Amino acid sequence: MLGDNPTIAVLGAGAVGCYFGGMLARAGNAVTLIARANHVGAIKKKGLYLDCISFKEHVKLHATTDVAEIANADLILCCVKSSDTEEAIGLIAPHIKKDTVILSLQNGVDNYERIRTAISNPTFPAVVYVATRMAGDGHVEHVGRGEIVIGTAGAPGEWADTLNTVAALFSASNVPCAVLPDVRRALWAKFLVNCAYNGISAIGAIDYGQMVETAEVQTLIDALTAEFLLIAKKEGVNISAEEAMDVNAQIPITMPRQKSSTAQDLMRGKKSEIDYLNGLIVRKGIEHNIPTPANQAIHALVKMLEHKIFTPIS
Amino acid sequence: MLGDNPTIAVLGAGAVGCYFGGMLARAGNAVTLIARANHVGAIKKKGLYLDCISFKEHVKLHATTDVAEIANADLILCCVKSSDTEEAIGLIAPHIKKDTVILSLQNGVDNYERIRTAISNPTFPAVVYVATRMAGDGHVEHVGRGEIVIGTAGAPGEWADTLNTVAALFSASNVPCAVLPDVRRALWAKFLVNCAYNGISAIGAIDYGQMVETAEVQTLIDALTAEFLLIAKKEGVNISAEEAMDVNAQIPITMPRQKSSTAQDLMRGKKSEIDYLNGLIVRKGIEHNIPTPANQAIHALVKMLEHKIFTPIS
Repeated sequence: MLGDNPTIAVLGAGAVGCYFGGMLARAGNAVTLIARANHVGAIKKKGLYLDCISFKEHVKLHATTDVAEIANADLILCCVKSSDTEEAIGLIAPHIKKDTVILSLQNGVDNYERIRTAISNPTFPAVVYVATRMAGDGHVEHVGRGEIVIGTAGAPGEWADTLNTVAALFSASNVPCAVLPDVRRALWAKFLVNCAYNGISAIGAIDYGQMVETAEVQTLIDALTAEFLLIAKKEGVNISAEEAMDVNAQIPITMPRQKSSTAQDLMRGKKSEIDYLNGLIVRKGIEHNIPTPANQAIHALVKMLEHKIFTPIS
Repeated sequence: MLGDNPTIAVLGAGAVGCYFGGMLARAGNAVTLIARANHVGAIKKKGLYLDCISFKEHVKLHATTDVAEIANADLILCCVKSSDTEEAIGLIAPHIKKDTVILSLQNGVDNYERIRTAISNPTFPAVVYVATRMAGDGHVEHVGRGEIVIGTAGAPGEWADTLNTVAALFSASNVPCAVLPDVRRALWAKFLVNCAYNGISAIGAIDYGQMVETAEVQTLIDALTAEFLLIAKKEGVNISAEEAMDVNAQIPITMPRQKSSTAQDLMRGKKSEIDYLNGLIVRKGIEHNIPTPANQAIHALVKMLEHKIFTPIS
């Protein structure tokens, strides 16, 4: 039901929201970024600085701290942290139109389900493959890739047209976007890497390349993955051990000097999304009666590091 | 076969070696500390500084870097790191008398066995309960406790007299020392705490008290303990789950502001003993075909942190 020139709102102006919102705005779409005052101030002054691999440009777009401005949006890109999903949806719920489409560009596998539980708007997951980081207020740095896949994820087939419109919108904005028949599989395949690598990289504040130089870490990644695949299967997603091994093996090769987003969160003294990564595997393990000791260890240790950040001892 | 006034050598002048060697010397025993040049220099100048809870005193004792001086020893206190056991024994082997008694005051459960494999001298384990740290060259700080238990650990019964002599020697030096009929049980009970707490404290560079404020960490401790108890049982040491829970529960209560020795090693940029703590549980698990995923995770993560210390990336 999405028209050809939809008004777009981006909820959460982290690196992912700024990059994709910025790319859409740069291509001429009407984009509103709902963000904290520091970003809004910087963007109002100079535009959003897209510091990309292939170009560097200040892009004009509307930025506001006022969540009520979401009222105009036909399409919302939900880019808040997984831990903030319910709160963010609660804030926009009084303001948005009934048929506004919500696309979750978040990490983890359950954000679109949680949004659907919280609000009746049509909501779909996107799997985002991009390496970006905020280099300052209103300044997003693009390090690699930048494509998206989306899908109906169990919603009625009549939404196929809407998703095609969304995909065309992205693709016309230099963001390659495909509609997949089984987007949950892509979601879980990306989630595998998050569960296998993010926590360990965060615990060591360590690059993917250096992380796997310790042989015992490879054994730990294998254990995390074996537990993950059992849970995925119970959730109706079949990923073979061989496929998982291939997906995992690429990470330290393609991103040797990269740290995980979880590592970046902790290094900046921020709460991480670990409750929705290894923490979700642990909860699903309890639900399905599948032991997940390796994922539990990673979850516990990252929670402990978070706790230490937020309750410093003199 | 140990006389009444044995000549004592301390191998490895860390906090444990300095404290117990210093206490024996202070009581009038002939003690030689075999140590690195920095400690030897400081001790030759001013004596060994025992900075204790109940007294502070510079104690005179003989310190040397020359391992050949071990030739006079009737009793050797082996206080090197678990990872240095074979190397240290190899260095002293050409020099020591055939009947010199070796007492291992080291962490872990297999040092006395590894010494017995390396050398034919009568060798016994000691379980050390003490909180000490090196505060500088030739300066040991004593923070709490200070008792020892020893036992024959499978050696023929005729060694009972020797152990009684050793125990009397310590006890007369203000180091309470008991001979236990089943010293392996005490060894494993202490080892439990090392496996349940040391690695986590090291990963977080975190005090025991703050460590357990994260609920998920308590679950992890329970998982480490459950795996540990299965291995202990296979090794002929029966510790009940209730007993283990009691032992573990005391740690954050009695030492809330203490970090593990493993944490202290990493914070000083030194190699830890993790291969002989959780690493030993993992190896025994493979040997006995018992899964030890929680211990494997801790072992892997501490190994990774060590690796990062020793191979910094620019």
